[in-house]
Amino acid sequence: MRSLFTTLLLTFLVAIAVQAKDNKGITHFSLSSDRFTLVENGKSLPILVDENDNSAVQIALKSLAADFGRVTGTDAQIVNTPTSGKSIIVGSLDSKFIKQLIKSKKIDKLQLQGKVEKYIMTTVSNPIEGIDEALVIAGSDRRGAVYGIYELSEQIGVSPWYDWMDVPVAQNSNISIERGTYTAGEPAVRYRGIFLNDEAPCLTSWVKNTYGTDYGDHRFYARVFELVLRLRGNFMWPAMWGWAFYADDIENSKTADDMGIIMGTSHHEPMARNHQEWARHRKEYGAWDFESNKEVITRFFTEGIERAKNNEDLITIGMRGDGDTALGGKEGHDDEYVSDDAKIIALLEKICKEQRDIIKRVTGQKPEKRPQVWALYKEVQKYYDLGLKVPEDVIILLSDDNWGHVRRVPTEKELQHKGGYGMYYHVDYVGAPRNSKWLNVTPIQNMWEQLQLTYDHQIDKIWILNVGDLKPMEFPISMFLDMAWNPKAYTNENLMEHVYDFCAQQFGASQAKEATRILNLLCKYNGRSTAEMLDHGTYNLQNGEWEKVVNQYTKLEAEALRQYMSLADNQKDAYKQLILFPLQAMGNIYEMYYAQAQNLYYASLNMPEANTWADRVEECFQRDSLLCADYNKNMANGKWDGMMIQKHIGYFSWNDNFPKDTCPKVIRVANPNSSDIVFLPKNGVVAIEAQHFTSSADATSGAKWTVIPDMGRTLSGVALMPYSKETAGAKLEYKLRISNAPEQLPIHFLLNSTLPFKRATGHRFLISINGGEKTEVNFNKNLNENPENVYSIYYPTVARRVVAAKANVKVPANSNGVLTLTIEPLDPGMVMEKIVVDLGGFENSMLYGEESPIQVLM
Amino acid sequence: MRSLFTTLLLTFLVAIAVQAKDNKGITHFSLSSDRFTLVENGKSLPILVDENDNSAVQIALKSLAADFGRVTGTDAQIVNTPTSGKSIIVGSLDSKFIKQLIKSKKIDKLQLQGKVEKYIMTTVSNPIEGIDEALVIAGSDRRGAVYGIYELSEQIGVSPWYDWMDVPVAQNSNISIERGTYTAGEPAVRYRGIFLNDEAPCLTSWVKNTYGTDYGDHRFYARVFELVLRLRGNFMWPAMWGWAFYADDIENSKTADDMGIIMGTSHHEPMARNHQEWARHRKEYGAWDFESNKEVITRFFTEGIERAKNNEDLITIGMRGDGDTALGGKEGHDDEYVSDDAKIIALLEKICKEQRDIIKRVTGQKPEKRPQVWALYKEVQKYYDLGLKVPEDVIILLSDDNWGHVRRVPTEKELQHKGGYGMYYHVDYVGAPRNSKWLNVTPIQNMWEQLQLTYDHQIDKIWILNVGDLKPMEFPISMFLDMAWNPKAYTNENLMEHVYDFCAQQFGASQAKEATRILNLLCKYNGRSTAEMLDHGTYNLQNGEWEKVVNQYTKLEAEALRQYMSLADNQKDAYKQLILFPLQAMGNIYEMYYAQAQNLYYASLNMPEANTWADRVEECFQRDSLLCADYNKNMANGKWDGMMIQKHIGYFSWNDNFPKDTCPKVIRVANPNSSDIVFLPKNGVVAIEAQHFTSSADATSGAKWTVIPDMGRTLSGVALMPYSKETAGAKLEYKLRISNAPEQLPIHFLLNSTLPFKRATGHRFLISINGGEKTEVNFNKNLNENPENVYSIYYPTVARRVVAAKANVKVPANSNGVLTLTIEPLDPGMVMEKIVVDLGGFENSMLYGEESPIQVLM
Repeated sequence: MRSLFTTLLLTFLVAIAVQAKDNKGITHFSLSSDRFTLVENGKSLPILVDENDNSAVQIALKSLAADFGRVTGTDAQIVNTPTSGKSIIVGSLDSKFIKQLIKSKKIDKLQLQGKVEKYIMTTVSNPIEGIDEALVIAGSDRRGAVYGIYELSEQIGVSPWYDWMDVPVAQNSNISIERGTYTAGEPAVRYRGIFLNDEAPCLTSWVKNTYGTDYGDHRFYARVFELVLRLRGNFMWPAMWGWAFYADDIENSKTADDMGIIMGTSHHEPMARNHQEWARHRKEYGAWDFESNKEVITRFFTEGIERAKNNEDLITIGMRGDGDTALGGKEGHDDEYVSDDAKIIALLEKICKEQRDIIKRVTGQKPEKRPQVWALYKEVQKYYDLGLKVPEDVIILLSDDNWGHVRRVPTEKELQHKGGYGMYYHVDYVGAPRNSKWLNVTPIQNMWEQLQLTYDHQIDKIWILNVGDLKPMEFPISMFLDMAWNPKAYTNENLMEHVYDFCAQQFGASQAKEATRILNLLCKYNGRSTAEMLDHGTYNLQNGEWEKVVNQYTKLEAEALRQYMSLADNQKDAYKQLILFPLQAMGNIYEMYYAQAQNLYYASLNMPEANTWADRVEECFQRDSLLCADYNKNMANGKWDGMMIQKHIGYFSWNDNFPKDTCPKVIRVANPNSSDIVFLPKNGVVAIEAQHFTSSADATSGAKWTVIPDMGRTLSGVALMPYSKETAGAKLEYKLRISNAPEQLPIHFLLNSTLPFKRATGHRFLISINGGEKTEVNFNKNLNENPENVYSIYYPTVARRVVAAKANVKVPANSNGVLTLTIEPLDPGMVMEKIVVDLGGFENSMLYGEESPIQVLM
Repeated sequence: MRSLFTTLLLTFLVAIAVQAKDNKGITHFSLSSDRFTLVENGKSLPILVDENDNSAVQIALKSLAADFGRVTGTDAQIVNTPTSGKSIIVGSLDSKFIKQLIKSKKIDKLQLQGKVEKYIMTTVSNPIEGIDEALVIAGSDRRGAVYGIYELSEQIGVSPWYDWMDVPVAQNSNISIERGTYTAGEPAVRYRGIFLNDEAPCLTSWVKNTYGTDYGDHRFYARVFELVLRLRGNFMWPAMWGWAFYADDIENSKTADDMGIIMGTSHHEPMARNHQEWARHRKEYGAWDFESNKEVITRFFTEGIERAKNNEDLITIGMRGDGDTALGGKEGHDDEYVSDDAKIIALLEKICKEQRDIIKRVTGQKPEKRPQVWALYKEVQKYYDLGLKVPEDVIILLSDDNWGHVRRVPTEKELQHKGGYGMYYHVDYVGAPRNSKWLNVTPIQNMWEQLQLTYDHQIDKIWILNVGDLKPMEFPISMFLDMAWNPKAYTNENLMEHVYDFCAQQFGASQAKEATRILNLLCKYNGRSTAEMLDHGTYNLQNGEWEKVVNQYTKLEAEALRQYMSLADNQKDAYKQLILFPLQAMGNIYEMYYAQAQNLYYASLNMPEANTWADRVEECFQRDSLLCADYNKNMANGKWDGMMIQKHIGYFSWNDNFPKDTCPKVIRVANPNSSDIVFLPKNGVVAIEAQHFTSSADATSGAKWTVIPDMGRTLSGVALMPYSKETAGAKLEYKLRISNAPEQLPIHFLLNSTLPFKRATGHRFLISINGGEKTEVNFNKNLNENPENVYSIYYPTVARRVVAAKANVKVPANSNGVLTLTIEPLDPGMVMEKIVVDLGGFENSMLYGEESPIQVLM
């Protein structure tokens, strides 16, 4: 998505001869005689096109006519002869109308001739006999025209994602544009595309549910191609796990060519043949081994080139092992891979020569006339580094590490390679350490930074992005293709403006700022770990890190939910797809493993909290399935059924060969109690929740120790109830492990701010260590309305319901190791909430800090 | 709200003679011949009532008939003569039909006679000539009958909060109940009610917007009375700031009496007169001083008793100063209050005697025949403690501290006082340390615990709750009145079941568990501090406490929003009133002051973060007004317009005498930079975000240091860009303050997991301290697919996009105090994210801990 600001910036950068009148958006949803009217009272201008212009132009125009219909309610009319009045005129340089305009100097030939995939969009008076004024969209070639057409679609309010992300189209019955000339210039990268990969089970299920086919047919691919073209891509690698693009549906290749998409085959599928075309005939064909089975393989290759000889498809050359593995290696066992390098290099060069001979034979031209690519993916890069020769004209496709980091750039010397370089980049990956197939986990900054690295090293012939099932990779697809058009338009400073423009296109300007902020943080947080890699040990439980990262997700979810509620109903599906679902789904996985970490911790201590956290794990696991079911079955009225069925819980190796999502293991404590625990110092204190006493004695009067869950500021309160009974005989005991205890320990207490309702001079308890001297603590003696207390102590304390008390408690000699703290109430109404033993690190605060680490007492 | 479980429990506890068939809910929304049919195909049974029974019964019956209409679409018919078939028969012991049923022994006289406010609800065959079977609701007195009537309303699905909280009524066309006899027994507390107080600006504005009156008229009060009766209250103190219940609308007192509500006047309004009745005539009446103006005051008192002599109203006696101040004191200056105790005690006793003489004169009976109350509020309690005599028959009203803690209970000896004791309790307060008028801040546990204390000390004659504007105190009102009926039904263990029952009544059983959890935590969190008391210093910023409490609110909000989205549309208003609004509103206030705390911290350091946080403060301030506007204007179609206009931001003393909510002060930094900062150790480390360098030098090649916001796991990444240029000359410097630095410091680095794209043996930087020996760090030498690295290092690292590195760096001699860390890249592509100097406290984690405290370098 490109805002007009960018468009015009490009105008100046790339095509300085083109004048722009205004650097604001050209589209207005109102009319003015100053501006050129596209739609008036719901009626769109007719679109004039030469019927002999390229099919790609005709097909894109049908989309544009329908887009006018999406906006106005009535499709625009496409005409092949001029109609009087105003018009839109569209064509490539092959169009007779465009030729006529160039001839009459109504448009500038120099702007287009010899250019690649460039359009100009310009208002012209009396362009052609009978037409008063026209908006002319002229392309340097067929794709130039197509991009101009889809630029106009965007300008009238149709997002490239209207179909694939259900972005609603705002209704307007009047549209005008500023008169002037606009262009996006030429693309920085020659081949810009996406690779549908790892397409089972999601994409394949969705296709089956949607089209009833076990493969992607031309109806499916036409929708993908349209998206790619709307995003100004021109290139694609088709899905190849179980599908064979060329073989499954003979219309597939034709549709690509008709629409203007250049097809390729993936890094390991040479000679315009799909891997499945071999795999389905393995018995018949024999081994995928060029040395032992050269004749069959050569015929296989030859058929590929024969099929592709009349289209633009980019030919992949080279060879990997059978099914995207290393030559001589074994899938999933990269660490065991050894090879006879020299031998394989010689073999690869031999294969390459044979492949180019085939190209020459079939096309009847020198092989360098037909664009080719050799992918230095995984082990192939090693051979290249060891001296593998790649023919001068062949594009060398470098790659990232499957996780978004570029493995290598050309050296100064290598830059002399005439074929130039390309980059194979991933936002989805099937492989170690774990598959990354479920959600988008690519931080915006990482893609930006590595694509800068890429472009700064002149890697600009191919940029291809592995997008998995396509959904839910909407944003990285847009960003990747946008950057492929003009990487240098994106800087560290304006990067978020790009995200803003994207969000504004999907949700409108008023929602864009907040959506941008949330989308950015979502990508950032998701970048820390995939769902597939997460487990209870990913973050540090003890230092609060686990809680922190879970909180970050939860905060973002709250903010996204606020925004979701503020959206118009027809925007909600798109928002769910882009932001809310991935955020809730990933946040929930975080919460689940965090709960598991807590469960395991408390289970190790035999404490009752273990069971609460076990429940939480199971609730999260259940919620995961509900969120995914909502995506598949409810969202957009079930349009995306099957698209969100990827397993993502229960990985134990890189692969997802486990039957189904599996709830993380939890441990339930059958007879929980806190009697065997001891608290350890941390950061200079031992902080204890009052509920975690190791033993207690009720009062002889019958008053009983009562835990009041959630009483007070943190965990709970512990009180001897009822208060109308005597307290004698009652006590609570706590254990803590301290080495080198001083003679006296300062101990802080947080209690409910019980007033001295019974003993006006204050209610008291005794505190002692290891049976030593008892210190009396009167915790509420100042909680009264005496003038000296009322404002300074009484009001501020009672209004917050908690009172702090402190005692210096004698530690008997030889009390190292485990100390026992004993609390004995002397008056009723003591509700103990928290106890903090100060070893020098006590900080005043409302909550008196986190509870200290606990161990089982040995 | 009482579930039938509770009802039946009460049956056994209080009225063991009554048999219950089933301890499950009696109501079924289907029919069965086993059960008694109340509604069939939308048609409700007729309700038979004696037209001469008390008006309270007649009025409540009208509600019940309408409640049947709310459920079925058609109101039930009220008849005064038996109709053939089945019926509902309702009445007090005064009803001729009930008398007839007692006479025919169809109902057990002993269950009702001499009982207080008790009903029995029982199915009776052939109760009266012509009726086959009836559900009989019989009351021991008029309120007993009313409570039985409203119990049936609840059972058919009408919440007591259907009007005051917009709880939707589920539609049902068939309703039957289990045959049997049910009762809730007698109430534990004699007078159970609420006090509308502090009613400006919210309640007064809402009344003005709703009724057009400048006072609460009988239409308004009738709605309040109905609520109180549905909740089984019987008592009220009316609003008295600017309104005069008795004087404003002559129908008010009559309406109360007709409906069965016992009125009182507040603790400082003696003799059934509203304070406003005096205040409005102060010029005419003179001083509110019994000594100097006895005659006028006596007449004023006398008029009150004359007006109330024929109703049940409870007479407040005693006297405070003019307008709820201490006798001889000054409002808001409690700390300056001094009095001549003996003199005032004598005066009060004299006043009391005079008041009782008036009662005797006017009623013509001994004063002890007319129930009276004397409130020991604030200073009055002191006089009581000093010996003030209260007549034996007068109820002594003790009180809490205005914040929910009981000030004092009767001693053993005092318990002999025949009049007994009452409790004046608050969930709203105007006074020090700050008003608490905006939201409910009473934790459920606190109210439970203190009301247990209350009841355990035999304080059971009056329980009156100060509820402010009534809204948004829905839950505490319900809980208080429920507990007033039977405090001992609520234990620490079943407390949440009560909340569950309440939530199930408002939102249905399927939503009740989660609503209970959220409501409980909301009350708990809100109990820590009122919005009015909060400021940037309330929580500890440096140790993360502020963030923690904000996160708790945000987490709860996310959970509430999830639930809100899952509700039926007609449930959303009620949920917003009870949970979502108070949660979002208070959470937002927390976030605002937290942002202010951050703003002030970073402003003190002159760092750019100050401005981001300043923006956040302002956004929160703005959001507060939007949330309140939504409550007033949109929620429930604007039904509650004016109810949420309480000022709550900008308090500087206890009182809200500031013109309007005021955005907390923020400091914007005009020329922010980080050049003057120094990091301090905390918890054994110094952790530095890479962006916080104090100085930097770009490379001589032109490559520049570039901060990439949000790159990496925490704050940002810092990179020298473009990577295609040489790095020589570039450096970053950081400052930290360490005393007693060791000879060598272990330093950890988190960097982007840049691969060795340029230098296959790894990319390097130098690190040095105070210009000392430079240590070379090669951060990515193992990030390759060599067999020994690929699974153990490469995959796990690149998949998480961050690589850790470590160096032991020499510290030059005499380097105590401020150390300067210098980082110099030797190869391109270093993206530094975080630097952690280990002083012994380093813990491995994903995020490498929180950034250490910062000071301005002196």
